[in-house]
Amino acid sequence: MRAQANGSHPDLHSAVENLLDAGGKRIRPMLTVLTGNMLNADQDRLITLAAAIEMLHTATLVHDDLIDGSLMRRGNSTLNARWTPAATVLTGDFVFARAAKLAAETKSLLLMDIFAETLAIIVNGELTQMFESRGLANRKNYYERIYAKTGSLFELSTRGAAIISEVDAQTVENIQTFGREIGTAFQIMDDILDFTGEQSTIGKPVGSDLLQGLITLPALFYIETHPKDENVKVLLSGEFRNEESMTALVESIRNSDAIQLALDEAREYTSRALNALNGQPKGAERQALEDLANYVTSRDA
Amino acid sequence: MRAQANGSHPDLHSAVENLLDAGGKRIRPMLTVLTGNMLNADQDRLITLAAAIEMLHTATLVHDDLIDGSLMRRGNSTLNARWTPAATVLTGDFVFARAAKLAAETKSLLLMDIFAETLAIIVNGELTQMFESRGLANRKNYYERIYAKTGSLFELSTRGAAIISEVDAQTVENIQTFGREIGTAFQIMDDILDFTGEQSTIGKPVGSDLLQGLITLPALFYIETHPKDENVKVLLSGEFRNEESMTALVESIRNSDAIQLALDEAREYTSRALNALNGQPKGAERQALEDLANYVTSRDA
Repeated sequence: MRAQANGSHPDLHSAVENLLDAGGKRIRPMLTVLTGNMLNADQDRLITLAAAIEMLHTATLVHDDLIDGSLMRRGNSTLNARWTPAATVLTGDFVFARAAKLAAETKSLLLMDIFAETLAIIVNGELTQMFESRGLANRKNYYERIYAKTGSLFELSTRGAAIISEVDAQTVENIQTFGREIGTAFQIMDDILDFTGEQSTIGKPVGSDLLQGLITLPALFYIETHPKDENVKVLLSGEFRNEESMTALVESIRNSDAIQLALDEAREYTSRALNALNGQPKGAERQALEDLANYVTSRDA
Repeated sequence: MRAQANGSHPDLHSAVENLLDAGGKRIRPMLTVLTGNMLNADQDRLITLAAAIEMLHTATLVHDDLIDGSLMRRGNSTLNARWTPAATVLTGDFVFARAAKLAAETKSLLLMDIFAETLAIIVNGELTQMFESRGLANRKNYYERIYAKTGSLFELSTRGAAIISEVDAQTVENIQTFGREIGTAFQIMDDILDFTGEQSTIGKPVGSDLLQGLITLPALFYIETHPKDENVKVLLSGEFRNEESMTALVESIRNSDAIQLALDEAREYTSRALNALNGQPKGAERQALEDLANYVTSRDA
């Protein structure tokens, strides 16, 4: 990943270095590498793919932070907080370009095609969220949103590894399901942590999604089980900008069984993911992947 | 190109439609198609490549207009003038994604690789210009800048067509030279028109590059031939923000022989481009390409 900034303008080079230094969980490239190891992928192509996916993820974060005006990410100040918007847009574009270059270096046309398709899905999802998802209490919309936001790239992380491993179509499909379901569980956990985490740990106000009008799974469960709550009525009448009411609602959700219901659903996705691995030979490689899957829904704030 | 927005959010779909409706000269895809016709390229792959290149160009324009705060482009209001910056960033990203998808559909790994590389060159060039090109009177810097800005994508337009035509390496190299030199001539002409054009035609103030501290070829010639001009001294002392002085300098350049010198240099690039076609069989296909090359340096404001 670091080599991708070689030869670029020194300021751009150091911006890319900073982005990579910030780290993050690196769960997507880990999924790619562990999946590829299980399927006996060529190591060079596998590492290249993992780097391509992490850089694609990084590029989307750079533009996201600009769009949201976020000043902190991964415990560091964002590029957006330090640079002009213009330089931030272009740095994101540069990281996209290098991600695409790495994807091309995996030497699979099919992979390149779904790589580009995944970027389109992510961006279309962000625009859809921007235009019409505020105040929307709709489970179908929620799942479409988290597929675009997270599921699609997790799916690419595992499906891509399967593609370069040149396994049969049924295995590719199972491995793709594994990635997508893990991604779904991961995003549900993130949405739960938005309610249960401490501000100091998650780095943003508790319930920040709801305060911005984004209704996630814990809120959906709470709405279903507490239709007469006054603050639920406020939310459903479209008044999600009523901060006092939304702050009270966040506190109610945080202390309700909606959290456990959402957690149960996340674990349901993890177990569907694990089922998709059933056809794989048992061994250290599959075990590592199962451990990673279980880690996703055991995270706490 | 239009099909690329199918299935996306309706607002995004209509934004992409508007971008494509605005037209433009379409000179890059024309180069691709004419080059491919000369080299007997497969028509489907050729059209797909041409669309990929024009969409890549469109995506860079969307982000450029955002960065420059431009409100008009191709005689229409920019996306930037009508949408929020956030929606504009994401629309540019979406168009990049669709361009990459089309590039992948040409089914050439080499092409995909240079496609991604070209995007990186363009973006790195823009960042370099942003960080260090203001007030820089340096011919090497000028040529590096216009290669990144224009030459690289023209080069891709012809080289890409040669690659999918599966011709020998020497032909690919000649065709690549043809595109690069035409792109250089094209950008020099644009830089001349920035001085000689009427504001109503070029849609921006006369001499807008210099007023922003960007020193292009006509200014470089003027500086070389008029070292004692007071306004040249102001410019070279780094005072390119002195608007009165720069406005006077624009007028001096506009009325000087620097314009003709720059025009001669542009035509020199056109003739190098035409020389690179020497090995190609004479016929209607080569003639169409030569006509397009000659058109580039015969444009007037």
